[in-house]
Amino acid sequence: MAVGLHSPSRLPPVAGLRIGTAEAGIKYRERPDLVVFELAAGSQCAAMFTRNRFCAAPVILARQHLQQGAPRYLVINSGNANAGTGEAGLQDASAICARLAALGNCATEAVLPFSTGVIGEPLPVERICKTLPTVLKGLDADAWLHAAHAIMTTDTVAKGAYREIPCAEGMAHLVGIAKGSGMIRPDMATMLVFIATDLAVAPAILQRALRAAVAESFHRITVDGDTSTNDACVLVATGAAAAPVINSTDDPGYAGLCKALGGVCQELAQAIVRDGEGATKFITIEVCEGASEQECLDTAFTIAHSPLVKSAFFASDPNWGRILAAVGRAPLPRLAIDKIRIHLGEVCIVENGGRAADYHEELGQAVMDKPEIPVRISLGRGSCKATVWTSDLSYDYVRINAEYRT
Amino acid sequence: MAVGLHSPSRLPPVAGLRIGTAEAGIKYRERPDLVVFELAAGSQCAAMFTRNRFCAAPVILARQHLQQGAPRYLVINSGNANAGTGEAGLQDASAICARLAALGNCATEAVLPFSTGVIGEPLPVERICKTLPTVLKGLDADAWLHAAHAIMTTDTVAKGAYREIPCAEGMAHLVGIAKGSGMIRPDMATMLVFIATDLAVAPAILQRALRAAVAESFHRITVDGDTSTNDACVLVATGAAAAPVINSTDDPGYAGLCKALGGVCQELAQAIVRDGEGATKFITIEVCEGASEQECLDTAFTIAHSPLVKSAFFASDPNWGRILAAVGRAPLPRLAIDKIRIHLGEVCIVENGGRAADYHEELGQAVMDKPEIPVRISLGRGSCKATVWTSDLSYDYVRINAEYRT
Repeated sequence: MAVGLHSPSRLPPVAGLRIGTAEAGIKYRERPDLVVFELAAGSQCAAMFTRNRFCAAPVILARQHLQQGAPRYLVINSGNANAGTGEAGLQDASAICARLAALGNCATEAVLPFSTGVIGEPLPVERICKTLPTVLKGLDADAWLHAAHAIMTTDTVAKGAYREIPCAEGMAHLVGIAKGSGMIRPDMATMLVFIATDLAVAPAILQRALRAAVAESFHRITVDGDTSTNDACVLVATGAAAAPVINSTDDPGYAGLCKALGGVCQELAQAIVRDGEGATKFITIEVCEGASEQECLDTAFTIAHSPLVKSAFFASDPNWGRILAAVGRAPLPRLAIDKIRIHLGEVCIVENGGRAADYHEELGQAVMDKPEIPVRISLGRGSCKATVWTSDLSYDYVRINAEYRT
Repeated sequence: MAVGLHSPSRLPPVAGLRIGTAEAGIKYRERPDLVVFELAAGSQCAAMFTRNRFCAAPVILARQHLQQGAPRYLVINSGNANAGTGEAGLQDASAICARLAALGNCATEAVLPFSTGVIGEPLPVERICKTLPTVLKGLDADAWLHAAHAIMTTDTVAKGAYREIPCAEGMAHLVGIAKGSGMIRPDMATMLVFIATDLAVAPAILQRALRAAVAESFHRITVDGDTSTNDACVLVATGAAAAPVINSTDDPGYAGLCKALGGVCQELAQAIVRDGEGATKFITIEVCEGASEQECLDTAFTIAHSPLVKSAFFASDPNWGRILAAVGRAPLPRLAIDKIRIHLGEVCIVENGGRAADYHEELGQAVMDKPEIPVRISLGRGSCKATVWTSDLSYDYVRINAEYRT
């Protein structure tokens, strides 16, 4: 059902990084559900995590481990979130890190754990630990696509993107994969994202580049307004490419890194929405002419979170009254209604506080009938703007979330 | 599909108030869609309106008229919201007021207009004006139930409630009707509510009593988080009962008024949720042990608005992980996760940051299988509490909102 989304046919290797996958039988049968990333010595790692206070055990542990030095392994399982599992969950995640550290001959703190799946079930630690040697045996630089498949939960399409980055000595690479489909909203989607480049980047610069890219991508999407307990976005720089270290934002390589990273993050973020649970439409909501970027974002998310707007999109119904009602309840001080214009695609549907004079239902219907729908709200009170992406609310959204777990 | 809700079998007359209904053929066929309330001279009127900035023409006009003196007529149509209709919509609403004023021999400003239904369509003013004489001819004190039916849109059950109020000279009455089913949320549901009592109450006291009752009823419900352009809640005091005027909150009659009004408002508010679009469950969310009432409310609404929580309720799935994740993203500063307890009915499902030690799925399942589900969140950081009521997210919610208009 994903809207205009196909699994990438190829994701190139990133020098300095190897990937292994295997079937641990955590929840799914006959598909890989366990992934290990092995990072070359000297790799740097930046990360952002969920802001949900009920964050999962692996999130707590990954944060702690990351503060204690550069990681050598990432270990990810799908099918079980290890969230809401209290002290036992922390011990479980820690046991997996310790086992992988023993096998990989590094400190336990050099392993970052990630989990995604059902909340509140104990993690089958033994099955995972028993499968780790198989995963390590299969480590391969050319396995990004396998990893993209292994981290899926309710996703219907494996998600990946890459860019080549021209550098002094040829081409560096930046590759990313993502999982995420439901429980998606701005404060990090319910998603796991793993991105790596063979550029060499100082840790502070790496974190800064990641934060900027996430702000314009994963923080601009919503499927259902729910934040997850397990969200994480990791960016690894192995430094294996023959390019000078990027030590500051003024270094010549920084702009190239940001461009590639921004592109990959935006492509992955949009892929998550395109594969949103039950999605039949991909909706781009641009709010412009705002007094601040924040008020543009607030307005866009108010529309994007409205179940009434979303079910109208599902019905391909140009029900502009619902969009207008959502704008009307957005938190905008002293909003002048008669200055607002609303466009569906290039069709102006609202102006002067009501239906545009030359608007006819057929014009709006033609835009709504397409799978990709651009909506533009012009607030008429400034020059700031912001864009968010969202999906519609369909029968299948309800079905997927009513049936999940059963 | 309404959950545990039946149309009242009887609503008693309120002395000093007569009601007429008729079929104007605005959108529906073969059912009344036009209502007039005639208030006896000397009646006082309090009202609260939507906070949506794209408020409908009748809301703008009713607010203006109310400031200019005590109304003699309320005129309500269903099937068309007269919202998003700009200047023309204001002229339409005004024309109806003027026509009714001419027929009823009062000032145009003594008529308050109300509309509910589809947004953005021009109001069929002529049909409405042509039907007004029929409505007036049928004015009757004993017609509350007819009015309750005539104001329905996607409602499946007519909603009404009443209380008797003991007073010095016998019994006074307080009767209310409501419509509302979708586009429901705390800042006034998408609802019209008309309440009347034959007590005599000074205008400022009447407004104060209404504000207090609404805060604990219509501002505590949500179906889908959307606010409407047309919400209004009106309270009339005709003064026809043989009871002394209530001039201050210290007057002996004030407590009796507030008790009856609070009861009717809460009953009507819960009726709106029970008849929420597609509702199969009636969910009471109580948040207690909070540091402030506001943080209890914020937490309760975060849960009540979560599509994931709501679709789990639809599936009768005791998916406490989703409730926990919603609490985790509620806007609570310095929330200590391990102090939180979550109960489904009397079953403790979460404590110490995870699943309660003696919790078994069957215990939660037994609660979830029922149509009425109480959820209690104990924040463990204070003594404040708040309760909100909501419904689940079902296939029918999507169907109703995807098909409405077509």
